Amino acid sequence: MDNLVSVLGADAASAIESFQLGLWFLIGAALVFFMQCGFAMVETGFTRAKNAGNIIMKNLMDFCIGTVVFVFLGFGLMMSEDYIMGFIGIPNMQIFDDFAGFVSSGKASSFVFNLVFCATAATIVSGSMAERTKFSAYCIYSAVISAVVYPIEAGWIWNTQGWLYQLGFTDFAGSCAIHMVGGITALIGAIFVGPRIGKYAKNSKGEVVSNAIPGHSLTIGALGCFILWFGWYGFNGAAAGSIADLSAIFLTTTIAPAAATCSCMVYTWWKNGKPDVSMCLNASLAGLVAITAGCAYVDAMGSLIIGLVAGVIVVVSVEFIDNKLKIDDPVGAVSVHGVNGIWGTIAVGLFDTKLGVFTAGKFDLLMVQILGVAAVAAYTIICMTVVFFCIRKFMGIRVEKEDEIAGLDISEHGLASAYADFLLTANPHTMEEEFELDMDGLVPVVLDKSITNGQGKFTKITIICNEEKFGVLKDAMTVIGVTGMTVNNVVGCGVQHGKTGNYRGVRMSMNLLPKVRVEIVVSTVDPGLVVAAAQRALYTGNVGDGKIFVSPIEDVMRVRTSEMGVDALDDDKYK
Amino acid sequence: MDNLVSVLGADAASAIESFQLGLWFLIGAALVFFMQCGFAMVETGFTRAKNAGNIIMKNLMDFCIGTVVFVFLGFGLMMSEDYIMGFIGIPNMQIFDDFAGFVSSGKASSFVFNLVFCATAATIVSGSMAERTKFSAYCIYSAVISAVVYPIEAGWIWNTQGWLYQLGFTDFAGSCAIHMVGGITALIGAIFVGPRIGKYAKNSKGEVVSNAIPGHSLTIGALGCFILWFGWYGFNGAAAGSIADLSAIFLTTTIAPAAATCSCMVYTWWKNGKPDVSMCLNASLAGLVAITAGCAYVDAMGSLIIGLVAGVIVVVSVEFIDNKLKIDDPVGAVSVHGVNGIWGTIAVGLFDTKLGVFTAGKFDLLMVQILGVAAVAAYTIICMTVVFFCIRKFMGIRVEKEDEIAGLDISEHGLASAYADFLLTANPHTMEEEFELDMDGLVPVVLDKSITNGQGKFTKITIICNEEKFGVLKDAMTVIGVTGMTVNNVVGCGVQHGKTGNYRGVRMSMNLLPKVRVEIVVSTVDPGLVVAAAQRALYTGNVGDGKIFVSPIEDVMRVRTSEMGVDALDDDKYK
Amino acid sequence: MDNLVSVLGADAASAIESFQLGLWFLIGAALVFFMQCGFAMVETGFTRAKNAGNIIMKNLMDFCIGTVVFVFLGFGLMMSEDYIMGFIGIPNMQIFDDFAGFVSSGKASSFVFNLVFCATAATIVSGSMAERTKFSAYCIYSAVISAVVYPIEAGWIWNTQGWLYQLGFTDFAGSCAIHMVGGITALIGAIFVGPRIGKYAKNSKGEVVSNAIPGHSLTIGALGCFILWFGWYGFNGAAAGSIADLSAIFLTTTIAPAAATCSCMVYTWWKNGKPDVSMCLNASLAGLVAITAGCAYVDAMGSLIIGLVAGVIVVVSVEFIDNKLKIDDPVGAVSVHGVNGIWGTIAVGLFDTKLGVFTAGKFDLLMVQILGVAAVAAYTIICMTVVFFCIRKFMGIRVEKEDEIAGLDISEHGLASAYADFLLTANPHTMEEEFELDMDGLVPVVLDKSITNGQGKFTKITIICNEEKFGVLKDAMTVIGVTGMTVNNVVGCGVQHGKTGNYRGVRMSMNLLPKVRVEIVVSTVDPGLVVAAAQRALYTGNVGDGKIFVSPIEDVMRVRTSEMGVDALDDDKYK
Repeated sequence: MDNLVSVLGADAASAIESFQLGLWFLIGAALVFFMQCGFAMVETGFTRAKNAGNIIMKNLMDFCIGTVVFVFLGFGLMMSEDYIMGFIGIPNMQIFDDFAGFVSSGKASSFVFNLVFCATAATIVSGSMAERTKFSAYCIYSAVISAVVYPIEAGWIWNTQGWLYQLGFTDFAGSCAIHMVGGITALIGAIFVGPRIGKYAKNSKGEVVSNAIPGHSLTIGALGCFILWFGWYGFNGAAAGSIADLSAIFLTTTIAPAAATCSCMVYTWWKNGKPDVSMCLNASLAGLVAITAGCAYVDAMGSLIIGLVAGVIVVVSVEFIDNKLKIDDPVGAVSVHGVNGIWGTIAVGLFDTKLGVFTAGKFDLLMVQILGVAAVAAYTIICMTVVFFCIRKFMGIRVEKEDEIAGLDISEHGLASAYADFLLTANPHTMEEEFELDMDGLVPVVLDKSITNGQGKFTKITIICNEEKFGVLKDAMTVIGVTGMTVNNVVGCGVQHGKTGNYRGVRMSMNLLPKVRVEIVVSTVDPGLVVAAAQRALYTGNVGDGKIFVSPIEDVMRVRTSEMGVDALDDDKYK
Repeated sequence: MDNLVSVLGADAASAIESFQLGLWFLIGAALVFFMQCGFAMVETGFTRAKNAGNIIMKNLMDFCIGTVVFVFLGFGLMMSEDYIMGFIGIPNMQIFDDFAGFVSSGKASSFVFNLVFCATAATIVSGSMAERTKFSAYCIYSAVISAVVYPIEAGWIWNTQGWLYQLGFTDFAGSCAIHMVGGITALIGAIFVGPRIGKYAKNSKGEVVSNAIPGHSLTIGALGCFILWFGWYGFNGAAAGSIADLSAIFLTTTIAPAAATCSCMVYTWWKNGKPDVSMCLNASLAGLVAITAGCAYVDAMGSLIIGLVAGVIVVVSVEFIDNKLKIDDPVGAVSVHGVNGIWGTIAVGLFDTKLGVFTAGKFDLLMVQILGVAAVAAYTIICMTVVFFCIRKFMGIRVEKEDEIAGLDISEHGLASAYADFLLTANPHTMEEEFELDMDGLVPVVLDKSITNGQGKFTKITIICNEEKFGVLKDAMTVIGVTGMTVNNVVGCGVQHGKTGNYRGVRMSMNLLPKVRVEIVVSTVDPGLVVAAAQRALYTGNVGDGKIFVSPIEDVMRVRTSEMGVDALDDDKYK
Repeated sequence: MDNLVSVLGADAASAIESFQLGLWFLIGAALVFFMQCGFAMVETGFTRAKNAGNIIMKNLMDFCIGTVVFVFLGFGLMMSEDYIMGFIGIPNMQIFDDFAGFVSSGKASSFVFNLVFCATAATIVSGSMAERTKFSAYCIYSAVISAVVYPIEAGWIWNTQGWLYQLGFTDFAGSCAIHMVGGITALIGAIFVGPRIGKYAKNSKGEVVSNAIPGHSLTIGALGCFILWFGWYGFNGAAAGSIADLSAIFLTTTIAPAAATCSCMVYTWWKNGKPDVSMCLNASLAGLVAITAGCAYVDAMGSLIIGLVAGVIVVVSVEFIDNKLKIDDPVGAVSVHGVNGIWGTIAVGLFDTKLGVFTAGKFDLLMVQILGVAAVAAYTIICMTVVFFCIRKFMGIRVEKEDEIAGLDISEHGLASAYADFLLTANPHTMEEEFELDMDGLVPVVLDKSITNGQGKFTKITIICNEEKFGVLKDAMTVIGVTGMTVNNVVGCGVQHGKTGNYRGVRMSMNLLPKVRVEIVVSTVDPGLVVAAAQRALYTGNVGDGKIFVSPIEDVMRVRTSEMGVDALDDDKYK
């Protein structure tokens, strides 16, 4: 930049810079669009598989419906030059009437940019209302927030005629205008739709306890978080006023979420004894939300502190909302976007390098920030309560109980499953490091034959064992002449009673452990020998070694040859 | 821009702008590269898990093979300055002979840009030919389209000496040159390779009906769609002539897919009673394809209409191709890219702001667009028919039947499963191509009843069989009056001892094969009849047809009614 | 550019270009950040599901911890202007003390850029140490490499006062500084932590053989590879000196990985008989690593050769390290980054267009490259051996054996499963909103014992029920004294005949519904009581409540104690 000024002069340099940032403005908007993908993945991953198609559809449609209504109404309400009293714009149809003028005056850029921001506010809500909201109700909500609710308050903040803008309210990229509004709406929506079936249940003492309902793919959720962080460089940076400003924004937008994730890791480690993965992913997003308002106005130390605080309050907030308020927010949208949106907006008043309480000893900005948060929050609460109340009254907001249990994919979209091929596995390889198969001196066990009076020609041996022992068992069976078996994964428990863990701050009792079930039917091979060999293969002396059941089989057929009885099992002739 | 002009003058401003767009051109190319990821995810998600590795490999290799052949041949055929008669370029080897000149003249930028576009055309086809095409055949196809077929027709349209370019044919980013060509090739490929086993089957009335074969991960498919949409801002925008043009392109590239998705949602909701998730994802892509030709030439209203139409015709086209033409296109590539590529190219003639029928009342451009579509389509049909004919004749285009049933991952790549820790489900539809259920003259098998002395009123029949036979078995059971069954996936082995494969250079012994276990408990139905019917349904004469076990059950209860014994099973009264 | 020079003169043009590249520098850094997502996906996809959360957490935390320590220490050690003797910088705290100056002097850009590069070096290692490393140990490693080890050697190469920089060592984007260092560290880490349980086992001949342990999602792994390739355009391009240079970098960064993937496909096809999918994905990355050092200095032919070689040596190296060295590197990080990092750095000396052995006949650069590789490798080996030695000695590097078998998700993070709905966790919590378990007045059902003539000492009760009722059933069984059960998911149908849905316009018959099967074997507990209690727990009065089957068991063994019969089931003594 200095070089440019010295060669061409300050005016030209400035003109070139602002022109260049016009290109970045659009690239940034594309990055913000990509955040829609991030939201879809986060929300899908952190909810159950039976609702995956529905969540994706909601994320897709809130952008698409939002686009259509933003064209016709939202953009005008927000950014119109005819702006009444600092409160609301008068829409015009220049986008249709005078498209060339719309483009050449830069409004096309502004439209794309504001549209993708608007869609971000709308899509936050789908997370908190996931897994039980009627799709039709969500479409209505989505149209109203994008057409009316968001554009009005965002105009207050970002239209140069808006009353908060005029007051000096500072929200660079939308901690308040977007995230807090989305988060508050998410809270109201979650309250109106109520908790998911099974989320809160009375325990044996009659207390209402919160059950963890784990999401179906942490990996997809994490993918979404990384995509969001990547897109956030566009979100926070798109409107930068200079390249130097942009570099500062990238710096603060990196430090805050990193700090938040570290503080969350330390906090959950200290509190629960183990660092919580999904909370740390949430903390990254919390740090990003919190730095959004001040990304261009705070320094490295400010962003570090803002992030460190965000990483702790997101955990406290998730647990408070879940355990105390008993409001069911499946993906933590209220805590990530709502609570940290407020924190981030207030924090500008504390850490703004020129006007902050801690940095400059000034209180004016802080007062304006608090006023703005209060005003926008009050506006959002009133509007969205009316909206959700009307939706609930006139069309219903929640699916039927049996539809919720069956999953919204099938009930709302006729989609059998988003994962048609999947079920479970039996891991086909031996997990023992160095296994020495020793079958010497094996004595068949004497079995109780009181049921069959010794007449049973076939016997089924069912073995429940640990997964990592299965390979050894298979080898042992081969040694004693067993030629066939059927295996599948099960979960089970015997005397031992499993480990317990935490999921997003809620205690889970997991007293069912993964096991393998092996079924073997024998005739010429002595069933007592099978039991003895299996016992030797599986024995470790630890609780949980497994059980072996013996039961009668009346008859067997091999399909290919139609052989019955002993012939169907004796495979020696094919060897 | 205005500011820049006033400070430095129009010439300098224009020079700065076009220079700046040189950077964007490369960033755009990187975004288009990322669309390869989107295509891989869409195609993988919308097909079955047993072919996931194969689909990914095809998507990876068509880019990599395409790159190599484009270096040596394709780029020259398309963009050479020695362009003969407007039809074909003379390749030179400047990229190797004079690399510095190649770079400084801007050809390196042009090469990267045209390469990623070429790869897009090639990769579209893998979707329509998924799950049954030989990998070697696909590699050959992929090399030919990238080296010869695409470069020639794209040269007509985008080389300034191309005959369609000279005629004023308008295809800004490739609705015709890329998507229509890819879509038509996808159609021809799907015809040559034929439908997947189980896709079309005769029902009991002898009519051929189309079976749905759901993809294995809607989430991964949706991820791909979002990535494609994101990348499309580069695809449509990379060649923009000015920042203002770019903002208009971003606007139309947002409105059209959003409108298409909305119209698709409304249309499928109205037609099927529920909004269809995967169709809406397809509709987003359809809207993007349709706006690609005209993104820089139509206005907001034009893009809205183009999108609304695209969202409906993609649904109509998918159903027409599947149900009427009986052509098996697993991911809808023909409808999304082919049909909407044509629609988008024609639509420029209707909505071009200066030359369109509806916007300017002029018909010349429409005629040129129709001529161009017809010429490129005819060229593509001829070339690709020859190519696929030769592939089929000289090397074979389709895998063996048993390999297709086992999945292309194991048969083509020696990959046991792309999802080793998970497994697949009892596939709910009959996989036999044309199954004739013949239960005439079925004689019950005489079973050994020595255990129960003939006193057992209930008998359990456990059947272990191949996955692809399960549908037939289920039908057979229904015919003989069985009213209930319990099914799960298992792995098992009998005499046969599995396939082996390599994983990352290490040999795996996989002597357990996926099977289905079916449990049926009968009382009034003769167990011997169940065994006989199951044997007939499952019999193929190959090793691995399965086994049938008969075992005693003491008693049964139906939970809802508390009925015990025979009453709990005899379901006739509820029919 | 030519146009710009002619209008404004060379000085202005150059100033404008370098200014413009300042924007691209930041965009490139954002792309490099996105590579963190790629690494997380590659490593997660290519390891097992039970460790997915742990791998994601490691990838997340190495960036976040790395950021914090890079702020306080790393950046200063690497890029300080106070650079001692060409070996190490003196950190200052300008980022906190004089943030405005830090930004305006361009250091904020430099910080962001160098930070994301540093994080890349750190994250490579998590792959080779996956599935058995203590999380706390990994955090320490991660802090040390980002704070000290990487910044020092990277300063040698990229600080203009660094001794290797002064010698003319050429590593444009980090084949040596980042990938080789990451790869060597990965090797040392893998040696220190040792192979995963089950990776190497003695076969029947007493030879140690390497077992393949397949990753759990090739699709997620492939997604990661595509994301990495996309991000690599930023990685290699960010520091380009001009737009023309950037176009050449994009070209070489495309040709090399494409060529590597092709040569790998051909090589594995020839060697194993089938083209290997996951190796080809690795080869793409290997090609990218290899071109990283020379991307701005070699031409098209050079990049082609570098890529072709990289695609073969990655395969040879993976197999050598696995089969010969018996070092367990789950994702091939050592071969991809370490071996190809060395190859790529040396290759600059061979193919640099001005100074290369093959291109210019000069040997000086090659000597410098070899010297640099040797020096940095020696430094890395020494440092990291000390680091891992200390970690192992003072805190332990590896998790306990049982924790490794159970998976690091549960043992290190208390996360039951990253995929709660798959892997047949019959969902472990009660799904009923408010369940009141009322077992008062329960009367055992009288069962038909005609088969066993009352002699059966053990009875199996098999219950088929709805998933959401399973929690209640489990509680009910506990109340009546049942101490063990085996559970798995099945699909099934009784009288009820399922819902039907549409998939992409085609009607599906889904007459099999998801159910849970519970098997309980009892001896002292009255089977009739089990049936009665289960009936009460499951009853809702709706079709589909389930069925209960009773069947005889001849005998039972508990593996751990070899107890037979009643003793094997009666668990009272252990309570």
